[in-house]
Amino acid sequence: MLTEHEIEFRVRYHEADAMGFVHHANYFKFFEMGRIELLRANGGDYARMEREGLFVVVVKAECRFQKPARFDDVLRLRTRVARITEAKIEHEYELFRGSERLALGRVTLAVVNRQGEVQAVPDWLKLLPAADPDGAASAGRGSGR
Amino acid sequence: MLTEHEIEFRVRYHEADAMGFVHHANYFKFFEMGRIELLRANGGDYARMEREGLFVVVVKAECRFQKPARFDDVLRLRTRVARITEAKIEHEYELFRGSERLALGRVTLAVVNRQGEVQAVPDWLKLLPAADPDGAASAGRGSGR
Amino acid sequence: MLTEHEIEFRVRYHEADAMGFVHHANYFKFFEMGRIELLRANGGDYARMEREGLFVVVVKAECRFQKPARFDDVLRLRTRVARITEAKIEHEYELFRGSERLALGRVTLAVVNRQGEVQAVPDWLKLLPAADPDGAASAGRGSGR
Amino acid sequence: MLTEHEIEFRVRYHEADAMGFVHHANYFKFFEMGRIELLRANGGDYARMEREGLFVVVVKAECRFQKPARFDDVLRLRTRVARITEAKIEHEYELFRGSERLALGRVTLAVVNRQGEVQAVPDWLKLLPAADPDGAASAGRGSGR
Repeated sequence: MLTEHEIEFRVRYHEADAMGFVHHANYFKFFEMGRIELLRANGGDYARMEREGLFVVVVKAECRFQKPARFDDVLRLRTRVARITEAKIEHEYELFRGSERLALGRVTLAVVNRQGEVQAVPDWLKLLPAADPDGAASAGRGSGR
Repeated sequence: MLTEHEIEFRVRYHEADAMGFVHHANYFKFFEMGRIELLRANGGDYARMEREGLFVVVVKAECRFQKPARFDDVLRLRTRVARITEAKIEHEYELFRGSERLALGRVTLAVVNRQGEVQAVPDWLKLLPAADPDGAASAGRGSGR
Repeated sequence: MLTEHEIEFRVRYHEADAMGFVHHANYFKFFEMGRIELLRANGGDYARMEREGLFVVVVKAECRFQKPARFDDVLRLRTRVARITEAKIEHEYELFRGSERLALGRVTLAVVNRQGEVQAVPDWLKLLPAADPDGAASAGRGSGR
Repeated sequence: MLTEHEIEFRVRYHEADAMGFVHHANYFKFFEMGRIELLRANGGDYARMEREGLFVVVVKAECRFQKPARFDDVLRLRTRVARITEAKIEHEYELFRGSERLALGRVTLAVVNRQGEVQAVPDWLKLLPAADPDGAASAGRGSGR
């Protein structure tokens, strides 16, 4: 099971703001793409998960913005499972342009049902390093499409 | 019953793009605010309408962009019922900065149920000039809040 | 020279609204991706064009929404040059999920300088069928990345 | 000088995601509105600041999401200056629906010039409690428009 995954994508025109930089709120949308693709790379399907009545909600999000990204930049986002408990999943994110790191994020998730009640994290969502027979270092790379 | 309504709002920082102008896609979000506030000014409540299982979907949208809007501009949006049939509602939108008109839009809506099946437009949604005992010219002005 | 181009992309989570459908304003962001990639497929570079002081502004945009797109759908967007004059460029867009057409758009652009003054459309931007020695039907397909 | 300010605004339709909740990335856009209005309440003008060549960039942003906000909710955002140094400004944000707190944020800003070089925080931007002859508790309330 993969505990790390990378996607690559190009910054869209509307994602930059009047300063010409990607607006900081958009980084959290990139991180969301990253964790959805990490799930997919492990055989999961977040859209189906919602149809079946389980929803992932963000309980905490943070990001350090180190260098600005710009329109048309090709970015590479590395998503890594940082910690999983019975109630929460925490991912770390590193955003790169080439070898240059632009941002560093961390987002904590909880799982709720349709009524918004907190649920235990399902076992199949626990992409824990410990659960990985091949070792924690296994990593994938995909396209996000 | 009001067939015309105005709201005023200030352009947010993230709504401008790298050119410094409000990104064209955002005008359609402004128009959506306008029709929701026109409904509210008539005693309607779009959030409740969705909870009760009726959804308004956009079937056609168009806009002519005449002059650019910028971050921090205070804009005034006039929403007018243009046409209502059994199946569709059509609004016209005029966006102003002061007395200067920046854009002219037209959006056609249909009503669907939870299954996405097209429904007849409910009578209470038909804010028709003809249904207005006080004449077609009645107009309101509000804050969009 | 290509007068038609296709890109494929996956709908992001935040692009769907409370109805579960892609919000109608987002289709215009997809169309923008389409024309930027058509330009790139022809050797152009919109980011460089802006750095050199030429900006493309939208003067008219319209879309017919035929079927809803949803989160995680893989969509295919076909962008086609419809008409080019001295002052304007017009593209047509068709958005598909598999073989099903979801939306049909048309966006008219003008070129301005840093001062916002309208410029003649540069020759190299005129991806006109007539200017294509290999015939008007030439089309490309790419990834939008 | 005000070190705290409140604005009130209504959640727009497109700000909710497929779960029916305001998408977490949008909270950071709300916070940006809050600090721009705090500046305005102190006689500042962020749009003019950018025209004069000073830009505020986000270097760190974080938020704890406690309860979901929904479409059409009227929210109240309290922005407070938390810390100002020669190089950075830090604000705290509390988002409320009625008396219920929905989210708690913290965003750190730096000031850069057109070339992206970090500048000392201008004195007039230092809305420090210590610089406030009327005491740190002074607070304003406005509309964000």
